[in-house]
Amino acid sequence: MFDLHKFSLRAQEIIEAGKFLYGAGWSPATSSNYSARIDDANIAITVSGKHKGRLQAQDIMVVDLQGRAVASQMKSSAETLLHTVIYDLKPNVGAVLHTHSVNATVLSRALRPNTEIVFEDYELQKAFRGVYTHEGRCVVPIFDNTQDIEALSALSVEYLKEHSDCPGYLIRGHGMYTWGETMAECLRHVEAMEFLLACELEMMRIKS
Amino acid sequence: MFDLHKFSLRAQEIIEAGKFLYGAGWSPATSSNYSARIDDANIAITVSGKHKGRLQAQDIMVVDLQGRAVASQMKSSAETLLHTVIYDLKPNVGAVLHTHSVNATVLSRALRPNTEIVFEDYELQKAFRGVYTHEGRCVVPIFDNTQDIEALSALSVEYLKEHSDCPGYLIRGHGMYTWGETMAECLRHVEAMEFLLACELEMMRIKS
Amino acid sequence: MFDLHKFSLRAQEIIEAGKFLYGAGWSPATSSNYSARIDDANIAITVSGKHKGRLQAQDIMVVDLQGRAVASQMKSSAETLLHTVIYDLKPNVGAVLHTHSVNATVLSRALRPNTEIVFEDYELQKAFRGVYTHEGRCVVPIFDNTQDIEALSALSVEYLKEHSDCPGYLIRGHGMYTWGETMAECLRHVEAMEFLLACELEMMRIKS
Amino acid sequence: MFDLHKFSLRAQEIIEAGKFLYGAGWSPATSSNYSARIDDANIAITVSGKHKGRLQAQDIMVVDLQGRAVASQMKSSAETLLHTVIYDLKPNVGAVLHTHSVNATVLSRALRPNTEIVFEDYELQKAFRGVYTHEGRCVVPIFDNTQDIEALSALSVEYLKEHSDCPGYLIRGHGMYTWGETMAECLRHVEAMEFLLACELEMMRIKS
Repeated sequence: MFDLHKFSLRAQEIIEAGKFLYGAGWSPATSSNYSARIDDANIAITVSGKHKGRLQAQDIMVVDLQGRAVASQMKSSAETLLHTVIYDLKPNVGAVLHTHSVNATVLSRALRPNTEIVFEDYELQKAFRGVYTHEGRCVVPIFDNTQDIEALSALSVEYLKEHSDCPGYLIRGHGMYTWGETMAECLRHVEAMEFLLACELEMMRIKS
Repeated sequence: MFDLHKFSLRAQEIIEAGKFLYGAGWSPATSSNYSARIDDANIAITVSGKHKGRLQAQDIMVVDLQGRAVASQMKSSAETLLHTVIYDLKPNVGAVLHTHSVNATVLSRALRPNTEIVFEDYELQKAFRGVYTHEGRCVVPIFDNTQDIEALSALSVEYLKEHSDCPGYLIRGHGMYTWGETMAECLRHVEAMEFLLACELEMMRIKS
Repeated sequence: MFDLHKFSLRAQEIIEAGKFLYGAGWSPATSSNYSARIDDANIAITVSGKHKGRLQAQDIMVVDLQGRAVASQMKSSAETLLHTVIYDLKPNVGAVLHTHSVNATVLSRALRPNTEIVFEDYELQKAFRGVYTHEGRCVVPIFDNTQDIEALSALSVEYLKEHSDCPGYLIRGHGMYTWGETMAECLRHVEAMEFLLACELEMMRIKS
Repeated sequence: MFDLHKFSLRAQEIIEAGKFLYGAGWSPATSSNYSARIDDANIAITVSGKHKGRLQAQDIMVVDLQGRAVASQMKSSAETLLHTVIYDLKPNVGAVLHTHSVNATVLSRALRPNTEIVFEDYELQKAFRGVYTHEGRCVVPIFDNTQDIEALSALSVEYLKEHSDCPGYLIRGHGMYTWGETMAECLRHVEAMEFLLACELEMMRIKS
């Protein structure tokens, strides 16, 4: 079993993250799902279909690293496996956020499937953990959308194994996944990614 | 007569919806009108011409399914019939929201009259009741604007009879109508529709 | 002299209007100026150069219809005459708001000088006093900017005499003027005008 | 040593500025850094890597005009020298703000390196200290980004010596620097600059 106090702390972080992300317009219409690691084996995650700006304690549940509900009859997000494979692969990751912004949706549709977005020469690349200069390349893959989450989770983990410095990924027409060692770091990554996507989209607008 | 307690509950939902929708910029300058079902025969609806972000109890009145004021000398929205025909046609509908965003206005003017907007391959289509995959087509018709609300209500109900899965419609240069079984569901539909319209408009910007 | 209680009521309306307009992004960087009629001869108006989101009672002063300070050593806005000529010409006007949005600035620069913006087929035209259908034309002139406010006030009043149904005007690169019988009506006109300008600009974006 | 009371006043101004600038979206993901002059020799400045919307007293430190920490083991922003050279050059400057908006980032990347942005015929140019008409030219240089802050600070101060009326500058892909005699004036300059950048970008959108 998991430690209840640790669960409560993580649940509260998820609730606060939801207020921020919904307020920013990045989790509309009950879209998105959020999670945080309780311990090596247990993950706190949002229950399916909740309003992300008004999460309450009962809207957070626990799953194991295979995505199975722990001590709960609730149904976790349909995309639970996309979260758990990241925790399984990356032991230092403490939080995973899936958001659903207009910009991520549009960019992932406007670019060809299975292409990558490459951020270069942006100072804000330094907001990603381990990046200390704007002079590198920051690569964000776009995966095709599917309702077969098992297949998508396998695809994503395969990619992340080969690209250990990948800061996040998009799903076509569906939004963004990113992660961090703490919820605060993960939220910083969301903000940085949304900023960079906004810049890329704006470049497309003025060049069109 | 209607049950007064049920009226008060629905009126409060409308007031709260107004705060949200005005705050989102979707009901500016006293535009828009909102309603909620009290029972089989009575509908709570906004009085004409009120500031939608600051509705008070006295700004909500009751009409029957023919749009006639019940127990009131107030004047309901000029578009009352557009609401009541939906309640009449769809017994499960508990709320109808008409909003008036820049995006809905611009898209409905930019596209040819009597065309439809088709959403495809958006994960957020799943925010609409009864949609479980992004792989279907979600069709939103655009009706020409007119001050003859009786004609427009007949046109809309005709369309909805033939397209029972239609999640909402636009009126050219005028805004959007959507509905739901509860106010919460109806608000989710507004958010989803505005998100999808924003995406479509953005695609037009970067392709132009 | 003016009635002090009436002054205080109007000053409070101006303070509240400033909070709203600054919050909407329409009065940045101490731009804009606002006024409200106290009586036939006296106008409450903002002191020059104040932060419009944080106006206090001492930031509102009184001028006569010739724009001269009344019972005050303060300096009213450089554009005071643009306000007072409207009160002088239109006895029913109770409030005048000058705002300074990005959209008004860009549109007034993008269009040729001394052209007009024409709103047609927008339902929201009905937000302007005296308009009961979207089927008419709503014309907003654009005047060239100048630091010679006396000349500009003469030009504006000349135009308004000939176009009594004009709902507001733009100054090139400088922002918008609109008015109403009450502050509430004037704020509705600002919202409607900004909505319609946003729509026009969006049409230019997707057509470009 | 510096006067502790004066430090506390400046630190509080920086904290409040951060709330505003983060709220406006101009300092996302721990980007940006802010400073305020305590006296001829000491500058209050943000500690490196903090969330700018939630600064606390312990997130503000003191550096001298050479950028060396005073009475502190904390690490000030990597860009500290870009602040201190301005205080050193301009004795009347009391505050320097570096912000990091999408608009500044995109414009600085879209325009050729080592070009200038020229604002002309904008009424809002009058928001900059010493500007009394829209009829002048307001020139904002764009410097190439580099992690060599010493070189960039030398370049910036060279430029500012030759252009004493320059209201601020951009760093390519990195954001904006501006300054003022007080924090209030500096914030007005940020707002004015962001407004003018937004206008310029919008012109590029509708012309593209």
